[in-house]
Amino acid sequence: MKKWEIAVIPGDGIGKEVVPAALDVLKAVADVHGGISFSFTEFPWSCDYYMEHGKMMPDDGLETLRNFDAIFLGAVGNPKLVPDHISLWGLLLKIRREFEQVINIRPAKYFRGLSSPLAEPREFDFIVVRENSEGEYSEVGGRIHRREDEIAIQNAVFTRKGTERAMRYAFELARKRKRHVTSATKSNGIFHTMPFWDEVFADVKRDYPDVATASYHIDALAAFFVTRPHTFDVVVASNLFGDILTDLGGAIMGSIGIAPAANINVNGKYPSMFEPVHGSAPDIYGKGIANPIGQI
Amino acid sequence: MKKWEIAVIPGDGIGKEVVPAALDVLKAVADVHGGISFSFTEFPWSCDYYMEHGKMMPDDGLETLRNFDAIFLGAVGNPKLVPDHISLWGLLLKIRREFEQVINIRPAKYFRGLSSPLAEPREFDFIVVRENSEGEYSEVGGRIHRREDEIAIQNAVFTRKGTERAMRYAFELARKRKRHVTSATKSNGIFHTMPFWDEVFADVKRDYPDVATASYHIDALAAFFVTRPHTFDVVVASNLFGDILTDLGGAIMGSIGIAPAANINVNGKYPSMFEPVHGSAPDIYGKGIANPIGQI
Ligand SMILES: CC(C)[C@H](C(=O)O)[C@@H](O)C(=O)O
Ligand SMILES: CC(C)[C@H](C(=O)O)[C@@H](O)C(=O)O
Repeated sequence: MKKWEIAVIPGDGIGKEVVPAALDVLKAVADVHGGISFSFTEFPWSCDYYMEHGKMMPDDGLETLRNFDAIFLGAVGNPKLVPDHISLWGLLLKIRREFEQVINIRPAKYFRGLSSPLAEPREFDFIVVRENSEGEYSEVGGRIHRREDEIAIQNAVFTRKGTERAMRYAFELARKRKRHVTSATKSNGIFHTMPFWDEVFADVKRDYPDVATASYHIDALAAFFVTRPHTFDVVVASNLFGDILTDLGGAIMGSIGIAPAANINVNGKYPSMFEPVHGSAPDIYGKGIANPIGQI
Repeated sequence: MKKWEIAVIPGDGIGKEVVPAALDVLKAVADVHGGISFSFTEFPWSCDYYMEHGKMMPDDGLETLRNFDAIFLGAVGNPKLVPDHISLWGLLLKIRREFEQVINIRPAKYFRGLSSPLAEPREFDFIVVRENSEGEYSEVGGRIHRREDEIAIQNAVFTRKGTERAMRYAFELARKRKRHVTSATKSNGIFHTMPFWDEVFADVKRDYPDVATASYHIDALAAFFVTRPHTFDVVVASNLFGDILTDLGGAIMGSIGIAPAANINVNGKYPSMFEPVHGSAPDIYGKGIANPIGQI
């Protein structure tokens, strides 16, 4: 029987509440199941850690994580202590990048009995495949001038390789489901990268004649997640659009605390990371009301 | 009595259905009201026009529009005929830019009797102030390499002037309402521009000690539009985030066909433009089912 070595990073805020709850469940699963066994090693990397050490994880943090079978992460971010872009790019996004977790899989499913904010929550069941390695999340760009003349520039970088990989993943997944892929685009407003996104989608789609497709601009698609979520099967989206759509997916499920996420290293070279879709939610931390289902 | 000279551009798809319906109403208003009078001049600029002339509007189109008091636009885009980024940047976005319509005001309000997709649509009433002149919508960027090596880069450009202007507009508006401004950010993932956005927001807010504020990342905020829309008053957002949030605003109102938008030239040098939030909706065009309320 293989023992799975799991690195556990509760992180910040409600991460510290939902992770222990989920570990209890994992331990119970191992006890009951018999065929599976876990070994958990906890790391205190977080904004508190930053306050003490001036960094979100030790210099050899990635080396340490690399030997684990998987990473189990709660949530990162406490803007009262550390600016969000420092804490996230120093821990969560750093792990996603360094371990080539290029695909983020985020299912949204209607659970009977949960009170959805939708009046008529038909039984939706879709998966968002989020490109997880590039796009709008990038360190490319910067600032120039000060005060009233200041300009900030953010580069979104889309490669053929990264874009196509996410789309192929979506089409392959659709083949195991209802054979439908929706592309989240914004080629009417975003001038360079989104027309490129559409072209790659058209190319990839040619290889999957058995899979039906649709393509909507992100604004309309976000609205459709509210008005007709039951019409989606697999949705493929860029890093930012996937981020927004999956929080919406959580919202229509009845609680964003329910939505899970898997950051997949598709080539198996590095550990994958499992986390809930929600963040550290500093506003509800410490009240004992965080829902641990997404983490579980 | 001033006669208002209005340039009318029905555009594409359901724009051609909702604009005539709205003109009937405007004419009736003028008839009944007495104190107001309109003169409408229609321009056929659209994707059909492009098919005939190779451009979305004549070369002197902007010069022509410039003499009007306001522009009344339906919707632009017919991807079957013209790629969206060509049609939109050749007409709608061109007008917004050239006439310095730097602010886009988009109210979302619960109407009693309309069936909202929300189970408990409390009486929300908020306005999204969308930065309308820069940000993620830019022609800066491009592509390099071909086929499997291709890379597309999109620059989002945020200036202090443009960012601050949208935020001040939002704070001034909030003073006439419930004195609350929510900032849509994503400073945890988008490395350069969104931390900048937060800094400008913190600066501007200091000048409005009488206005309360909140700041959420766009993913969480999109979810809150579904789970607690009644908690917002004025929301200030970048060009892209404003685009997404206002379609969501339309969705929770019960139909995106209901949401209106005003593209404001704040210095009064050029005409402002009035249009619905929805697009040309080619999928429902010609069925006579488009809702003209947003246009009206
Ligand atoms: C058609 C498109 C370019 C436009 C936008 O994204 O601004 C539309 O969605 C809108 O909201 O007015
Ligand atoms: C915390 C933040 C950087 C992160 C993201 O935007 O990817 C989170 O929202 C998520 O969805 O995992």
